[in-house]
Order: sequence, then structure tokens, then C-alpha cells
Amino acid sequence: DTDQKGCRFASKAAPKTQVEFEYDGPSMKTEVPGPRSKELAKQLGEMQNVGAINFFCNYEESRGNYLVDVDGNRMLDVYTQISSIPIGYSHPSLMKVLSNPNNMSAFVNRPALGILPPENFPEKLAESLLSVSPSGMSRAQTMACGSCSNENAFKSMFIWYRNKERGHNNPSEEDIRSCMINQSPGCPNLSILSFMGGFHGRTMGCLATTHSKAIHKLDVPSFDWPIAPFPKLKYPLEEFTRENAQEEARCLEEVEDLIVQWRQKGRPVAGIIIEPIQAEGGDNHASPDFFRKLRNIAHKHGCAFHVDEVQTGCGATGKFWAHEHWGMEDPADIVSFSKKMLTGGFYHKDEFQPYRIFNTWMGDPSKNLLLAEVLNVIRRENLLEEVSRSGKALLQGLYQLQAQYPNLLSSARGVGTFCAVDIRDEATRNSILIKARDKGVLLGGCGDRSIRFRPALVFKEYHVHIFLNVFNDVLAEYN
Amino acid sequence: DTDQKGCRFASKAAPKTQVEFEYDGPSMKTEVPGPRSKELAKQLGEMQNVGAINFFCNYEESRGNYLVDVDGNRMLDVYTQISSIPIGYSHPSLMKVLSNPNNMSAFVNRPALGILPPENFPEKLAESLLSVSPSGMSRAQTMACGSCSNENAFKSMFIWYRNKERGHNNPSEEDIRSCMINQSPGCPNLSILSFMGGFHGRTMGCLATTHSKAIHKLDVPSFDWPIAPFPKLKYPLEEFTRENAQEEARCLEEVEDLIVQWRQKGRPVAGIIIEPIQAEGGDNHASPDFFRKLRNIAHKHGCAFHVDEVQTGCGATGKFWAHEHWGMEDPADIVSFSKKMLTGGFYHKDEFQPYRIFNTWMGDPSKNLLLAEVLNVIRRENLLEEVSRSGKALLQGLYQLQAQYPNLLSSARGVGTFCAVDIRDEATRNSILIKARDKGVLLGGCGDRSIRFRPALVFKEYHVHIFLNVFNDVLAEYN
Repeated sequence: DTDQKGCRFASKAAPKTQVEFEYDGPSMKTEVPGPRSKELAKQLGEMQNVGAINFFCNYEESRGNYLVDVDGNRMLDVYTQISSIPIGYSHPSLMKVLSNPNNMSAFVNRPALGILPPENFPEKLAESLLSVSPSGMSRAQTMACGSCSNENAFKSMFIWYRNKERGHNNPSEEDIRSCMINQSPGCPNLSILSFMGGFHGRTMGCLATTHSKAIHKLDVPSFDWPIAPFPKLKYPLEEFTRENAQEEARCLEEVEDLIVQWRQKGRPVAGIIIEPIQAEGGDNHASPDFFRKLRNIAHKHGCAFHVDEVQTGCGATGKFWAHEHWGMEDPADIVSFSKKMLTGGFYHKDEFQPYRIFNTWMGDPSKNLLLAEVLNVIRRENLLEEVSRSGKALLQGLYQLQAQYPNLLSSARGVGTFCAVDIRDEATRNSILIKARDKGVLLGGCGDRSIRFRPALVFKEYHVHIFLNVFNDVLAEYN
Repeated sequence: DTDQKGCRFASKAAPKTQVEFEYDGPSMKTEVPGPRSKELAKQLGEMQNVGAINFFCNYEESRGNYLVDVDGNRMLDVYTQISSIPIGYSHPSLMKVLSNPNNMSAFVNRPALGILPPENFPEKLAESLLSVSPSGMSRAQTMACGSCSNENAFKSMFIWYRNKERGHNNPSEEDIRSCMINQSPGCPNLSILSFMGGFHGRTMGCLATTHSKAIHKLDVPSFDWPIAPFPKLKYPLEEFTRENAQEEARCLEEVEDLIVQWRQKGRPVAGIIIEPIQAEGGDNHASPDFFRKLRNIAHKHGCAFHVDEVQTGCGATGKFWAHEHWGMEDPADIVSFSKKMLTGGFYHKDEFQPYRIFNTWMGDPSKNLLLAEVLNVIRRENLLEEVSRSGKALLQGLYQLQAQYPNLLSSARGVGTFCAVDIRDEATRNSILIKARDKGVLLGGCGDRSIRFRPALVFKEYHVHIFLNVFNDVLAEYN
């Protein structure tokens, strides 16, 4: 029987101090969605579209790495709300932030942050966002969500670029007149260069740089902006260095060609946006060397360089920012974030002063309170080290399973716990996701046929083993 | 002395039950911004742009209609965080929502609402958004902010329009292929018709429909979409019915011309977006007849009709939605909201099924909890009636002051407490705003030279009198 199911992964006893608020393992009572979830979906269906609903959750009972649903099923969550839960469910430190009466006002009195910030805002900004500033950046602007973060970062880059072109910050009369009716030069024909397979959000500016799935873009008007190929590498990266370097060189050459072409057709590239690992597009990696050279191309052509860390940021790769793996002092002009950071926003170099970036809320100080505590927990519990350790165990386990099921799995890859593996085809991938869920492990897909692993930062080695054993059992059913 | 200062407004004693948690009146200790605010602005300036900061606030001490700053100044707030505080600061009912341990999880465990909603989501949606659905609408989609609400509403309208054109919901191979590279027919050349003076947000789709101030649009690429004139009416509306009707007819004719022109140039108008009262653009009103005719034009030409109630919604006009004043059973296809609603989002007709409208958070259920309680308070305290009563007193007071200071004030106008008045020029308007603040009344400008009044729904008649007396004192200084 063990032969058929493949090797078992040692499930070490968890140190008690770290799990006292968590559960021992998954526990399934019904199929998912269960009867209560189905009933609620019917109710909700009267009020909004429920086509994407998986099931309904009991968040009060969810703890740490375990998501509990309304039918009493308890699942090990390796997807964490599309990678947006930093330190697990109902973390005691976050519950304390909520039960502290001194914090109530921040949740009840949401200010227009750009004009009337609360007294503790500079202090909380220093404790939260500024305490984890990327290299070369000491300024941050908060926003409500990931799309707004990228949209406003684009605006900052366009303003910066136009000021460079003008040689000063004072618009002409013609600029002012023409912009009111959406015409150039006031609304200039500038572009953002993005990569095929990239995902940067779904509002109309962001969406023009998103190229992961047709379903995101279909029927929405867009901008004529250049789209470069993202390297299609072979994994494991260290085994295919020569071929991969060639592929990366091909893509970089295309980037330069596009910058020149778009300048010639009167739509200069004001900025380049890229994810350190393409997530929605299928967990596509590129080498630090690729990113360093891309950054240099941006410098050479006077384009801003925007690193989108909405999904990769906040520790999942074992460093706080995924772009830290590139080992550069000057990696970016703009770094945007959201998801696990709990607030959206972007860091920027001093010269990208967003003096005309404004909206009513400009973020939400209650999210900064929670983020400050998340960062305390990350430091206190050494979670970046834990992520590196768990990530190694996860990737080793995936390599082992890939060797065991070569017709089923391929291209296991990852940094930290930000891992993925390809399944032989889309239908099999989708069926594996459902079987794993029925056995108590919640996973997410990405790209055409990949599974992505997006656990919280409190996903320890013993959680990796629980996951691998379930995954192994599922894969065994396909042999 | 009374002559010089003009007549005084009777300040009736406030019924004790309604003010027990509020203050008696403004109380000023320093100039604004005071020394502590200046110190904090310096600190914050090291971390982000502070060009728009007015002063720093002590929200813990702020109550009801009174905003308290960090220097101990207490101001009657007639601007309420750019019109985004529904029932005043620190309302006891909202504080109770926060102190209820059953609600903690909603604030700590933010879900990906579109896939894994909490158990109470259908119930809270019914209690909150669906309990105040606009006429003809029983479906609502939540979003994080006003701009995201409009962006996603635009996408819904584009998808609806393309499905109409295709005659079915199934995109062609060419649609799917072309959309991935931002090209038509997948990314179609469709447009949204907007109005000069309108404001619909600052992300790139919204911004293409915003035409209130150049500073919002300058240097940001845009779409070639049609922009119609918004009627420039004379106030009070009832005194200039014939001229105003002519002006409205001129604008409606232009709308139809633009729809035809843009269809001919291959960029058909998929939707029309309009505010019931143009707010940022200067509190510009139009008659119910204008909106009824515009709605008919939309019907006639097959364009969706999107009413943007981000600023006008949630009771400020004495009806829950400003478009209820038009007296129509079928006023709109889409109604978007944010600000006082605490969550962004949009209502839509059944045929605008947003089955491809999606993002990670899709709103925030903790805001729905707060909104449900806000709506309870509005009903329990009959706040819409109060708004109508206060609004009448406010407008009467403005008429009186306008008669008294004819060289200073003109065009007093408003519905409910959603009132405004024009000042003789921009410099005088700006100086009045500062003088009023120094006397303990916080006001906001809009358009070139208007002052807009945006109190919370708990702004009672006696607050109107406090305001009018201070305003009167300020105006007296200009005579």
C-alpha cells in the first residue's frame, strides 16, 4: 500500500508554542461545497453573480493555516485568499489590535488621508511601510487596492516623464487646455511597456499591461502599448543555464526594439512594469541577470522601472521583497504592493514625487495599524527564515514527487514558499485541485496548467509535510 | 454692531438626547494648522508628499459634527472628509460594532470575497446595500473605492454592449487572440460619453470621463471619448425656468450629435455617465426633466445609462439617492457609490451581469458591517427627514446672506444639505475658507469659486445656525 501511494513525508511533531492557537490537521465532514455553502450560494445568487464562489467560510473558527468552512470542513490553506493572508487566520496579535479600545477610532473614523491624517499616521507609517522600504526608497504612498496602486504609479511615471521632456514642472496653456478634452499634448501619447503573461490589475490602465488570460481583457477598450515576450525558461533553472540565458537575451533584445519602435511611432515608453515572478500568468521565473539587464535598458532609454510586488512582496520568497534576490543597490524606481501588505500602495524614488496623486481615501489607516503588527510578528517569529526553511522542504518534496510521477508533474520551481508545478494538462490540473480540496488541502491554479503554492508566512515544515502527504495521495489516484 | 455683522440666526437649544455624545460648539485654541500639526507635517514630509495636508486630527476626541485637531481646536465640520462621513465622528452605534467581539474576525480576516465569502455575507448584503437598492435594481457588486467602482461599472457596460453587438455571449477566436495584445475587435473601440465639469475618479478609465480640473488629467494618456456640455443654469432654478430649459435642450441636442458622430467614426458610445449634481466641478445642477430626457436618449441609441452617486448618494439630498428626485421608475442601468456608503461598488440591472468583473478583495466585508449599522441609524433617527429640514434652513440662510452681501455671494443652490454658493472670485473664496476655519467652521471649495456644504446626515437645524452665524461674521469682514 505504501508503494502504491509512494513514499510518506515525515510529519515531525510541531513545537507546541507555535501551534497552540492552530489545529492539528485537516478534517473533512462533507464534500465541498457542502449543503450549507450551497444554500448560501443560492441566497447570494439573488443579489450578485456567484459564478466564481468556491464555498462559504467560517472565519471565526479559522486559525493559522487552517480555513474552516460553513459545513465544518477544516482545510490546510495553501492558497490563502489569492495570496493575501500574511500570518494566517485570526492571529492572536491581530486580534489584540482589534480588541484594544485605543484602536477603535481608526476603524470607525476613516479619514481623507491626503488632507486630514490622524495624529499617529507618521508614526504608524514609519513602523509599517517605511520599516520595510525597498533599497533606494524612503517614500511611500498608500492606496486602497492593488489596481489603484499600479494605476497611480503609472500616473507618477507619466508625470515624471513629461516633466523630463519639458525640462520643468510647468505645463503650457496648450497642455492645460488640451488635457481637459482628453487630447495631446495635455494627455500625451505615452505608453507603459509590459510583458506577455504579466498581470498588473484589472482597471483600464492596469488592464492594458495585463496579458495573462483573455477573459480578463475581452471587450474592454485598451491602449496601443508595447508588449514584450517574457522568457520561457526550462526548470530547474540551474540545469539549463545556457539555453535559458539565450532565451532571456532574445527577450531583452525585443524589449529594446519595442522601446525604439514605440518612440518612432510617437508613443514613447515612459515606464516598464514587470513582476519579479509572473504569478497569474503561470509562475514564470527569470534570472537575476535578466532583471539587472532589464533595469539597465530602462536606464539607457530613460524609462522608469516599476517592479510590481503585489503578489511576490511581503516575505513569500524568503526575502521581504522578491526583487532583493537580484542583489542590486538600485533595483527600481517604483515598487507597488497590496495583498499580504493589507494596504495597497507604492514606494517611489524621490524624483517621482506624486504631488498630483490624490483621491478621497488614499488608503486606510486601519490597515496600517494591522500591517505594523504583521511586521512585528514577522520579525519576532523570524518568519522570513521559516519561509526559507519551509520553501526548501516544499521544493524538495515537489522534486521528489515529480521524479515519482514524471507523466503527471513537471517544472517544479520556486523561491521560498512561492512555488509551483506544472500538471500534464488543464483538465487534470483542475481535477487535482478538487481532489486535494476533498482531502483537506486548498490549492490554487495559475497559467494554463500550473498549480501555485501560496501559503501564509506561518506555513512551517510540518505543514509542508501534511501537504505533501495529501498531494502524494491525490497524485497516486492518477497512476 | 449687529447691523455691521448682519442679522443673527436663532440658535435653538439642541434636544439633549441627540447631542449627549456631541460638543456644544466650536472651540479654537490656536491658528490652524497649529504647532503640533506643523511638527507632524514635517515628520510626514520625510515619508511622503504633504502638499495637500490641511492639518492633523485627533479622531479619538472627534464626535458627531465636530472634528478635533491635534492642537485641541474643535471645528464644526461641514466638509466631512470630502463628503465621506455618513453619521458623524465616533458614532456610539459604530463604536459598538467595533467593540462587539463577534465582529472582530471580519476586521482581521479579510477574504477574497468573490471566491470565499464569510457565512454572514448574504445576510449583511441584504441588510446593507440591498436594503437601499435604487429603483429597478436588485443586484449589487462591492468594490474597494469610488474609482474602482466606476472602472468596473464601465467594464460591465462594455461587456454588455459587445454581447449585444454579437447577439450572444461567446467571443470569437479573433476576439480572444486580439484582446491579448490590446487590439480590436477583442479590445473594441468603444467609448463612454461624459460631461464637461464631471468628476468620476482618477484611475485611467475614470479619468477619461473626468473633466473638472486640468490638474487631475494633465500628463496622463487618455481615450478619445465624447464629452458633452453640462447645462450652465441660472439660480434659483425656479426663477429662470425658460432660459434654463433652453440651455438644457442645447446640451441634450449636443449629446445626440456626439453619439451619432462617435458611432460614425467607429467608436460607438457604450454608456453615458453623469452625476445627479456635478460636485467637484462646482455643484452644477440640472432639472429632473433634463435627466429624464437624457435617460431617453440613452435608451433610443442603445447606450447604457450610468448614474454616479459617489458623492450625491447616501442621503445628503434628503432622499437616499439623489436620482430619486427625478421621479422615474427606470432611472438608470448602473448606479455607482462610495464615500458615505463606506464601501465602494455599483448596483446594476440584471442584464449587466458582471460575470467577468473580479479582483482579489472585491470590497471588504468589514465595511458592510459598518454600513448596515449606518443604515440602521439613518432609519432609527429619521435622518433623511432631518437632512430635508436642515437643508431648508441652510438654503434659506444662504439666500438671506446672498441678499445681504450681493457683491460677495451669488447662485446659492442645493437639495437637502447638498448646498453650495458662489463667491465673487477664487482668491476671495479661498480666503473665506481659511477665515471660517479660524473661527471654527470647516468648509470645502469646488469648481473655480464655489463653496460646497457637505455636512454629515446628523447635521441638525441648530448646527445650521451655528454655521450661518460664523459664516455671517466672516462675510462681514469683506464689506
